[in-house]
Amino acid sequence: MDPIARIERALDCAVGAAEVRGCPPGLAKAMHYAVFPGGARIRPRLCLAVAWACGDPDPASTDAAASAIELLHCASLVHDDLPCFDDSPIRRGRPSVHSAFGERLAVLAGDALIVLAFQTMGRRIPAAPEAMGRVIATVAEGVGAPHGICAGQAWECEGEVALADYHREKTGSLFVAATVAGAESAGAPSDTWRVVGERLGEAYQVADDLGDATGMRQGFGKPVGQDDTHGRPNAALALGVTGAIHRMKGLVASAIDAVPNCPGAPLLRDLIASEARRIMPEELLRLAA
Amino acid sequence: MDPIARIERALDCAVGAAEVRGCPPGLAKAMHYAVFPGGARIRPRLCLAVAWACGDPDPASTDAAASAIELLHCASLVHDDLPCFDDSPIRRGRPSVHSAFGERLAVLAGDALIVLAFQTMGRRIPAAPEAMGRVIATVAEGVGAPHGICAGQAWECEGEVALADYHREKTGSLFVAATVAGAESAGAPSDTWRVVGERLGEAYQVADDLGDATGMRQGFGKPVGQDDTHGRPNAALALGVTGAIHRMKGLVASAIDAVPNCPGAPLLRDLIASEARRIMPEELLRLAA
Repeated sequence: MDPIARIERALDCAVGAAEVRGCPPGLAKAMHYAVFPGGARIRPRLCLAVAWACGDPDPASTDAAASAIELLHCASLVHDDLPCFDDSPIRRGRPSVHSAFGERLAVLAGDALIVLAFQTMGRRIPAAPEAMGRVIATVAEGVGAPHGICAGQAWECEGEVALADYHREKTGSLFVAATVAGAESAGAPSDTWRVVGERLGEAYQVADDLGDATGMRQGFGKPVGQDDTHGRPNAALALGVTGAIHRMKGLVASAIDAVPNCPGAPLLRDLIASEARRIMPEELLRLAA
Repeated sequence: MDPIARIERALDCAVGAAEVRGCPPGLAKAMHYAVFPGGARIRPRLCLAVAWACGDPDPASTDAAASAIELLHCASLVHDDLPCFDDSPIRRGRPSVHSAFGERLAVLAGDALIVLAFQTMGRRIPAAPEAMGRVIATVAEGVGAPHGICAGQAWECEGEVALADYHREKTGSLFVAATVAGAESAGAPSDTWRVVGERLGEAYQVADDLGDATGMRQGFGKPVGQDDTHGRPNAALALGVTGAIHRMKGLVASAIDAVPNCPGAPLLRDLIASEARRIMPEELLRLAA
């Protein structure tokens, strides 16, 4: 099955479990709206790709890991957009969840999506206790404190921020969760996959910073210039546009180098290279050529 | 070990895992502040009491379940107090988390506590996969959508609210999680414990409604008259004070009746009766005598 179709089906299943008779209609709608239609689903695709490169012997556990990671990503976007953070009226080219449903349902939908992510993974414990024990630990580490998304976001509340820590936690941590949990859900050794996730997460963050700083975005569907406005660390502001582009290319190359030898390695390396081209605006690549 | 000491130790361990070098200091402090010093720890005590009544053969799993339930309860209080919900400046007799740390850290601390709860339970999967698979499902059901705390809170955003649904989900669901997960963590049949949790949750909610409506609170440490102010359903406003007191007494009696026969049943029944006296202001009991 096409990976995107597989991810959408897994997400449909997961979110569908909450959208039943008796759920407060506003909450069910806000949760659905936060997840569908999605963005590029880059994290769950990465999780599936790694699991596939490792043989993917238990696709249902891989689906659980991948969809949980995407649910947590969606939850973080809903909370990031809240008035007290980015106060962003737009996400993925349409009103953000709090703009469409109000702040209260945005807080609750984010909370309920976090719970749903763990519920989705928890359902696979009886069938694959060993793998899911690892996957749940990995995913939780990627989103919570002290070093997950919540921590990354919390650096915005501190006076002094180390750019590297901030990005590693706010963005990189879920990419690491995607590669590591992909291997774990396939019952494969996962240590070697950590660095692939780290490099890709950092590359993605630099691309996002470039999009924000230059206004050249490929389908991000969100406002630009936000980092400057909010005084947030941004690689393009720190390194300059050309410097940031070179940094991103170096990170992608090093992620490709870090892919361990396994039957699916050549295809996975190709996928990473094409994905890197997709997230980087062509105008920017020409600029740095 | 004294149950309260046991719960505090388990919570210390859980929250301590987030309070390490490298965690954004504000986030670590806000998480700690949200959990310590606690309230009556009524939900984890109930969880421990049920596990104990069932023999408690695996105390570490019981501790994980009980502390996860308390972490989720604390997270829900942090988010409930936010300006977009109750806008409560006070909780447990001191500034609420957003009053003390700002709204952004309050949102993030709540999120991180939800993650921490599942992380805490997840750690026991390798040692007790069967029990923890059940416990995680039970606890997730108690907090998420369609019928957990998030759903209960979301009914406040709907035009029409059924008082029973609202209370069952906003308060009862975590009491049910406490009794059911207590039995599950002990590897005991859990079905019979559901009704005990339901009745106690409803009784507790009625006591809370009475405290809010009459201003007679036993150590709740939060403002009164909030339900009326926010137009929220309240049993004392709906049934009158005397009616609500009788309802609460009936619920406690029926919870005691529902305790299944097990070696620890007599002691557990005594504990429920004394707990019911503790949460009900004496002046109110005299009123309804």
